[in-house]
Amino acid sequence: PVEEFNLMFKTFIGPGTGRPAYLRPETAQSIFLDFSLLFRFNRERMPFGVAQVGKGFRNEISPRQGLLRQREFHMAEGEFFFDPLTSGYPPFSKKADMEVPLVPGDGRGKQVRMRLFDAVSSGLICSEVLAYFMGITFDLAVELGIPDSFMRFRQHLETEMAHYARDCWDLEVLTVNGWVEMVGIADRSAYDLERHMEGSGQDLSVLRRYREPLMKEQINIEVNMKELGPLFRGAAGEVSDAVSEMDPSDVEDILGSGKSLKVRISSGEVEVPRSAVSVRRSVVKVSGGRFIPHVVEPSFGLDRLMVAILEHAYSEEEEEKGEGEEEVGEGPYAVLRLKPEIAPVKCGIFPLMNRDGLPEIAGNIDMSLRGKGLMTHYDASGSIGRRYARMDEIGTPFCITVDYDTPKDGTVTVRDRDTRLQKRVAIDVIPETLSGLISGSLYFPDL
Amino acid sequence: PVEEFNLMFKTFIGPGTGRPAYLRPETAQSIFLDFSLLFRFNRERMPFGVAQVGKGFRNEISPRQGLLRQREFHMAEGEFFFDPLTSGYPPFSKKADMEVPLVPGDGRGKQVRMRLFDAVSSGLICSEVLAYFMGITFDLAVELGIPDSFMRFRQHLETEMAHYARDCWDLEVLTVNGWVEMVGIADRSAYDLERHMEGSGQDLSVLRRYREPLMKEQINIEVNMKELGPLFRGAAGEVSDAVSEMDPSDVEDILGSGKSLKVRISSGEVEVPRSAVSVRRSVVKVSGGRFIPHVVEPSFGLDRLMVAILEHAYSEEEEEKGEGEEEVGEGPYAVLRLKPEIAPVKCGIFPLMNRDGLPEIAGNIDMSLRGKGLMTHYDASGSIGRRYARMDEIGTPFCITVDYDTPKDGTVTVRDRDTRLQKRVAIDVIPETLSGLISGSLYFPDL
Repeated sequence: PVEEFNLMFKTFIGPGTGRPAYLRPETAQSIFLDFSLLFRFNRERMPFGVAQVGKGFRNEISPRQGLLRQREFHMAEGEFFFDPLTSGYPPFSKKADMEVPLVPGDGRGKQVRMRLFDAVSSGLICSEVLAYFMGITFDLAVELGIPDSFMRFRQHLETEMAHYARDCWDLEVLTVNGWVEMVGIADRSAYDLERHMEGSGQDLSVLRRYREPLMKEQINIEVNMKELGPLFRGAAGEVSDAVSEMDPSDVEDILGSGKSLKVRISSGEVEVPRSAVSVRRSVVKVSGGRFIPHVVEPSFGLDRLMVAILEHAYSEEEEEKGEGEEEVGEGPYAVLRLKPEIAPVKCGIFPLMNRDGLPEIAGNIDMSLRGKGLMTHYDASGSIGRRYARMDEIGTPFCITVDYDTPKDGTVTVRDRDTRLQKRVAIDVIPETLSGLISGSLYFPDL
Repeated sequence: PVEEFNLMFKTFIGPGTGRPAYLRPETAQSIFLDFSLLFRFNRERMPFGVAQVGKGFRNEISPRQGLLRQREFHMAEGEFFFDPLTSGYPPFSKKADMEVPLVPGDGRGKQVRMRLFDAVSSGLICSEVLAYFMGITFDLAVELGIPDSFMRFRQHLETEMAHYARDCWDLEVLTVNGWVEMVGIADRSAYDLERHMEGSGQDLSVLRRYREPLMKEQINIEVNMKELGPLFRGAAGEVSDAVSEMDPSDVEDILGSGKSLKVRISSGEVEVPRSAVSVRRSVVKVSGGRFIPHVVEPSFGLDRLMVAILEHAYSEEEEEKGEGEEEVGEGPYAVLRLKPEIAPVKCGIFPLMNRDGLPEIAGNIDMSLRGKGLMTHYDASGSIGRRYARMDEIGTPFCITVDYDTPKDGTVTVRDRDTRLQKRVAIDVIPETLSGLISGSLYFPDL
């Protein structure tokens, strides 16, 4: 049997079933709801953006593929509000020359590599704002460790586009589950704010200030009530309104031509003395107009992005072991090549032996790094090879070993996960060296 | 009418009402559920802790007092697992001398100031682990900006204590709503893991390794089946079991005394030939025993902690203005004295005038600070006093002004929110100066 099915989870607030409520299926709407407040926080200037990270809940009938489709998931959404009449978006110049792989939504499914500038110029991407957010999203994904050859932007087909979207591109990543949408970047036009205006009766329009005030000619009809009053008595107001509603140019013509000026009121047509009516032309300064902001929304699925990052970071490699050393474990040797900036543990810290003062030195280094906000993992058990293996497996980019030279010369061995190179570094520059390696301002082989 | 009321929000998974589900009222249980996995992640070593931040949902009948009691709220919970037989917890030594205000749960409600060491020694606080977490929680609250004279630990009364708690202390903060619980720190003993063991049938006990293996004497009864078999035939097994279940010392006595050895089996009492039974004493090495970990749980209400921080940071002050300057706004001059480390915006950046190259210099400083991960606010509109006021109001601790001396000598004015002092600082040391001021390693008046 066909059954009504709401993708939102329903619950009830308070005792009984009196007040139904739904778990939010996206985070975006609360930003639109708070628009007036947020606009004021930004001192009523356009354009401006608001971002939010949070949980979404969807009552998926068949959650599947690990973390790709879940009933409870994390999302990060941004709403970038702008004036649709403003041509261009200056920061776009920084991304205009970027070449990205695009699959246009023309139904042919063919991928093209194109500069964002050309994609906007040719009308493929609907605006500079949208293209700008596509550019920074692509860059972010690369920074997070997803190889650019495994990514593409796919434009929604006409038939697939949400009713509110003017244009929409998905950043897709090629995974073991095929191409998977990670981020949707949509131009939602003024759809959401307009619906909230309809629903709430609140005015969510904002003032567009013209760069130069416009000088606009106005024609106003002026009616002399002192003359109409005695003539039409109780109907004078009705006559005045009827005259005022006429096209000012028509009135001007009539007055100039000497024709009689007739209007229709509830009691029938009446003639209005031309002396009681005049037309005045004036020039007024208009410094702005009101409009409803449009919005571009990048919407990130955080869990699936995490999965894609892990999938592309994971590799199984030849184990590194010295002559006569045993293998550290069964099965393949796993290395998680997380970018240092996103690795949860930045540095493993090992005393070579658990005696002779080495643990104390290692402990001090550990404390000094933690004091700088760097997450570390102290490990004093097993061979150094086994300890490297533990760190490689969880993506820790660097390891420090305190050995018997350390008490003598104040240096330690720093080992780089990705090159497996080792360097001697003085203890007192360890914190800044690690910070530099993590931020990318230092390159390990150059140490 | 009395109505059943569940404090948990109920919903349904999938179509229809087939599979009820509840929104979690706390985050703790998922840590207990995952205990085996988490213990393995920690390489099966005790003690260890797991922390989690997340949302909780409670169908409060009357949410009230702003953010103090909400239906959807943020909490951070830690579960620290330990062996209850381990006497003491070494890191406690770092907090033992701390004096804290305690309100014992003896019903008298009197506050005492006491060293944590004395509170544990006298048995007021049930363990060093609990006292340690009380100490670091108190320190954290002070670091977050809550004055210590507005805080106290209140012990739960016997009648108030949750059924699972061995001891429980609330960190309370004095607010406009009176004393409000911010953090509950409870010794939940082994309650949760025991219930999960009961419910799941899984063994969640862990191995306690003795420092030195214990040498334990064992007495075993040995039965010679070759002799019992022909004698008792099909009942031989039953006879053997009955003998084995006897107290080994009793058997030893009987064998030594020459009495007859009788046991009861299903067919009645039988006599067992003494030659078929012997008792063997041996010494075995026991290197550990199994136990169910106990847990101390600090549970933070994040929203109310945020409210308390804001309440204690907010102040209304005399406006700072030069001679002839106008007041920047109506109403009191608001300053939010957030600690620099938790202020969302660390630094305001102002070009004195919006021309003559000053905005370019200010823009570069802005970019360099953002590049270091410091959140800034660039503001080029209104008088400098008004811009200070905007930053004071949202708790920004420092402001930088680029003025006409900047292009000449490469310095800018740095202004400190709390002292209102201003110093000239060279642009090229701005990032490290700000980092030092924020972390507290630099003191503004010493610049």
